Amino acid sequence: MPSDTTTLKGQPFARDQFEQLVKRRHFYTPSFDAYGGVSGLYDYGAAGTALQNNIVELWRKHFVLEEDMLEVDTTILTPYDVFETSGHVARFADWMCKDPKTGEIFRADHLVEEVLEARLKGDKEARGEKVEAEEDDPKKKKKKVKNIAAVKLDDALVQEIEEVLAKIDNYGGEELGLLIKKYDIRNPANNSELLPPVAFNLMFQTSIGPSANLPAFLRPETAQGQFLNFANLLEDNMQQMPFASASVGKSFRNEISPRQGLLRVREFLMAEIEHFVDPAGGKKHPRFEEVKDVELELLNRDVQLDGKTTVETTKIGTAVETGVVDNETLGYFLARIQLFLLKIGIDPKKIRFRQHMANEMAHYAADCWDAELLTSHGWIECVGCADRSAYDLTVHMKKTGAPLIVREQRKEPLKIEEWQCDLDKKKSGPKFKKDSKTIEAAVEALSQDLREKLSLDLVKDGKISIDVPGVNDGKVELSKELISIEKRTRLDTVREYTPNVIEPSFGIGRIFYALCEQVYWKREQDEARVVLSFPPAIAPTKVLIVPLSSNPDFEPLVRKLRLNLKKIGISTRVDASGASIGKRYARNDELGTPMGVTIDFQSIKDNTFTLRDRDTTEQVRASIDDITTAIANIVKGAEQWSDVATRLPKFEGQEVD
Amino acid sequence: MPSDTTTLKGQPFARDQFEQLVKRRHFYTPSFDAYGGVSGLYDYGAAGTALQNNIVELWRKHFVLEEDMLEVDTTILTPYDVFETSGHVARFADWMCKDPKTGEIFRADHLVEEVLEARLKGDKEARGEKVEAEEDDPKKKKKKVKNIAAVKLDDALVQEIEEVLAKIDNYGGEELGLLIKKYDIRNPANNSELLPPVAFNLMFQTSIGPSANLPAFLRPETAQGQFLNFANLLEDNMQQMPFASASVGKSFRNEISPRQGLLRVREFLMAEIEHFVDPAGGKKHPRFEEVKDVELELLNRDVQLDGKTTVETTKIGTAVETGVVDNETLGYFLARIQLFLLKIGIDPKKIRFRQHMANEMAHYAADCWDAELLTSHGWIECVGCADRSAYDLTVHMKKTGAPLIVREQRKEPLKIEEWQCDLDKKKSGPKFKKDSKTIEAAVEALSQDLREKLSLDLVKDGKISIDVPGVNDGKVELSKELISIEKRTRLDTVREYTPNVIEPSFGIGRIFYALCEQVYWKREQDEARVVLSFPPAIAPTKVLIVPLSSNPDFEPLVRKLRLNLKKIGISTRVDASGASIGKRYARNDELGTPMGVTIDFQSIKDNTFTLRDRDTTEQVRASIDDITTAIANIVKGAEQWSDVATRLPKFEGQEVD
Repeated sequence: MPSDTTTLKGQPFARDQFEQLVKRRHFYTPSFDAYGGVSGLYDYGAAGTALQNNIVELWRKHFVLEEDMLEVDTTILTPYDVFETSGHVARFADWMCKDPKTGEIFRADHLVEEVLEARLKGDKEARGEKVEAEEDDPKKKKKKVKNIAAVKLDDALVQEIEEVLAKIDNYGGEELGLLIKKYDIRNPANNSELLPPVAFNLMFQTSIGPSANLPAFLRPETAQGQFLNFANLLEDNMQQMPFASASVGKSFRNEISPRQGLLRVREFLMAEIEHFVDPAGGKKHPRFEEVKDVELELLNRDVQLDGKTTVETTKIGTAVETGVVDNETLGYFLARIQLFLLKIGIDPKKIRFRQHMANEMAHYAADCWDAELLTSHGWIECVGCADRSAYDLTVHMKKTGAPLIVREQRKEPLKIEEWQCDLDKKKSGPKFKKDSKTIEAAVEALSQDLREKLSLDLVKDGKISIDVPGVNDGKVELSKELISIEKRTRLDTVREYTPNVIEPSFGIGRIFYALCEQVYWKREQDEARVVLSFPPAIAPTKVLIVPLSSNPDFEPLVRKLRLNLKKIGISTRVDASGASIGKRYARNDELGTPMGVTIDFQSIKDNTFTLRDRDTTEQVRASIDDITTAIANIVKGAEQWSDVATRLPKFEGQEVD
Repeated sequence: MPSDTTTLKGQPFARDQFEQLVKRRHFYTPSFDAYGGVSGLYDYGAAGTALQNNIVELWRKHFVLEEDMLEVDTTILTPYDVFETSGHVARFADWMCKDPKTGEIFRADHLVEEVLEARLKGDKEARGEKVEAEEDDPKKKKKKVKNIAAVKLDDALVQEIEEVLAKIDNYGGEELGLLIKKYDIRNPANNSELLPPVAFNLMFQTSIGPSANLPAFLRPETAQGQFLNFANLLEDNMQQMPFASASVGKSFRNEISPRQGLLRVREFLMAEIEHFVDPAGGKKHPRFEEVKDVELELLNRDVQLDGKTTVETTKIGTAVETGVVDNETLGYFLARIQLFLLKIGIDPKKIRFRQHMANEMAHYAADCWDAELLTSHGWIECVGCADRSAYDLTVHMKKTGAPLIVREQRKEPLKIEEWQCDLDKKKSGPKFKKDSKTIEAAVEALSQDLREKLSLDLVKDGKISIDVPGVNDGKVELSKELISIEKRTRLDTVREYTPNVIEPSFGIGRIFYALCEQVYWKREQDEARVVLSFPPAIAPTKVLIVPLSSNPDFEPLVRKLRLNLKKIGISTRVDASGASIGKRYARNDELGTPMGVTIDFQSIKDNTFTLRDRDTTEQVRASIDDITTAIANIVKGAEQWSDVATRLPKFEGQEVD
């Protein structure tokens, strides 16, 4: 795991300064700060909300519009029964350990990890090796483990601990309990022993209605709502398979001890796709051809189980061919996820796809790859892409009887040879009277094997005896006058199957955080001047308008330019404050505003403006119409700055500090 | 209250058929149907979600972009203390009555209303008057009152009951209890007496963290999150007033007995604006001039208290001038709300603005007007526009000390004459030693009146005596060597004030429902063919593409047209099924798809297509480029169908059923 990151200009990344920036400019701030705060809850301020909205809008274009997905909006409140069926009541939990003396609660896997990592660090110190700087350590922002004794460990123990850590996500509660015993892991604050790990369900509970008699959860994922709407969705798609539904909305997880800012929170925005596919025929995807040459960095399961983190650059076509990625549909989405992440401005060198290990997977998953993004907290899971097989649709159908299946006309009817029983109801009715229905049902329920055997009995004895619980002594005799059993051929014209589900699931907040880190850098000439280089389509505000001064003569021009841009849906901010032009641009570089327009006295004379590019600080000068067109083109991606800088006259005026 | 509605073509509105349509086409469906359903929860299907997204997008353009509002996204989970401070814990409640025998729970105001309305109806029947049809009655979809005896009432009693009903929203718990006694209102199912009304808090409760020690609510409005971010928002707006924040998100209310489909639900999407304004100077609005001639239908408080519902058509400029609407900012938003509603397709004849009566207002409101939309359920509150005064910012600041105020440099410093006490600390320190700080604070805290009186004592006696609890016997003497008291003039350069808040609050689900009802109509020639005439910008899908048959020769053209439209962000659906062209169009008229393109054999020859208008069923024929341009113009509102029909050649081919 890389332990330090650099900015896109190759500068060392300083997390403290970065965090100060995003908080100071209100990209996000801790919720309810005035009330002492609640850990794991964050508010998105004006810049953050605009950025988040733009990411979601681009997600809708890239996935929903592009693939004609059916977006639905289902409820957050979900009755208990639904998550009991889905397995979340039993299994959607983390393991926690309690200190019986203080009542303090620890998340078991995090505690084991922190303590063991601290011991390794102590060992390194004792050996006089270089120890990583604090902030490069991925999981210790609010770390419980504070003082590390520099104690040298046996070489064998070091290797053992390193292997445990590589597999940390793969342990269950019992195994964590054994590790805690084996390595004598205690409450780091007071050294007291901890109770064994117990499961803590991560769903928030509430109850619905005035008499509080309907227990309910806040959903931990949007998926179940989509599954329960499957029959409607299939109808909306005119019974055609495959297809995908999608949902964007809040989900909730009652994390045991949230830390790391936006990376582990209790309320978060998800964007989820459920792609429904016929399991027969290898889960092919009709558009796989379009992405097969996309190269991904893959870190597969086997490599991790060997205690390693070596990635391999692989074309997705090859990965599917060789079976590293199970099928085309899963592969198609891995490639599409990468293309989306690049589009919003993620650094191609900071994406990898990691396969889940067996015990690490959610209970519903048959296979799962995470798109991980590199941040100063290490590689962070930002998009999960799970193959949920037919799990969810099957359990809901079994529980409720709702028809969560596809019925497909067979091209060639299937010939089925089977033993059929013909009961002569005109005779059996009068004979068995009130028991006749029960007996009919018992005959219907006979298995094929038994029917074959009984057909022989019927020939041999002229009668058969079948089990009918509750009638006579539980046995009923049927003579060949009443029943005949024959092997016949039936034509089956309809095929029924439960679709499998490939689920790309996006944690918008984590993507948001990783993106902000990755586009952050400092100007060469002045390290205090930091820039967030969001792509124009994603940037919170597109254009800063800077009149030279607060002179009222500039106002009509400001108004005209804003109106021009507003008409085409482009957001602007005006800074008519007394600060220098350079300072005003610098303030908006911090917000990632990609373009700036200066209005000066020349503008009043000849209606020309300068347009400034955030990343290069280059400027061009042109008429209001040319400037408006250039801005519109850059925002919609039809032109880049380099195109504009080539075709419009350069402006050499200096930014005044 | 109008008791029957008609479609936009003047046809009687049939609610049953309408509801069948929106459910059949999955605009919305009851959530968790397979699990028996949960009342008050609805899922939006593909058509509904697209419609909802389009309404929200247009809302953002109309309000957030147009007025440079600062949109924020704050959490749904909210700690108990926040809503205790805001008054929601104590007062955000409805009144409920319990049947002690069956445990059944009734919402008190609804029960009184239903029973009294039923008695009036019985009276009418007894008098042989025409009684309204069931479905025209606004609040009785799942009515508790089933059988109405045709009993004639005294004329005086009828009048009394009518007055009670006109004021039904104005009664509190005690008054409802008295009405229940006075009119002997019982459980309609078993005639048993009910317990007196008790308050039921409408917020959903949960708790945060593994030890469940932090009680929390799901927010019932997005507003509090915006208020708590006020200081950050003001900073983002560079300390400039007035400005507005905005939020779009889910809110939750644990309704006692939800009914009427989308109109009273437990989880709903809100879009809220908090406009912060200086209370001094009459709450003027800088852009009021732009809207002052907008005409609104106003139903003010006094008219309602007289037991009437007469609206008056008034220019908003006049309404503010005459004081019917309190101030410009409130008036500005009422006009802007109406303009928004018209833009999304609301019938101008089916909007009115109703002022809240005193007891009806939420506890935080100083004044409130609702935009009500006419539906078959009567006039429904869809947008509230409340003046929350300085209530929320004041209580949160008082509770937490957070600076939820504006500090404004005065243009002219204020001269303040005041009595100042000068304590000579060089002498008082050594004299009072450990008590000196306490004594200093006591001096600082002296009121102006007391200082004036003490200055006289000091002149007269050469010393004063002040109260200092906890020091000596609670009194301390200060001689004129230690203290002097003088009247001086101080210049106050900064004005501090708590902004007032005007809050337009949109219930997106209610607007969604009212819109669907209002755009629903039936084709003259065939009543089974129904149409939803959404404006193109709002329609779930913009274009239906209909190849003449499933002949593969059409596929390249279908693909090309889709790609053209996708590139400019326009959603299409293809119906290549075997149904007739007419049938396929009819299916998509039900979804409100405004345009259809037919691809036929002529298209293959000369690359021309027909473009069909949903509302008129007129068609034109043109090249793919002309068709694409026409579609783009219609979607963005640059052209209407009539423009396109004039400039492109008409196509006279018949729709084939």
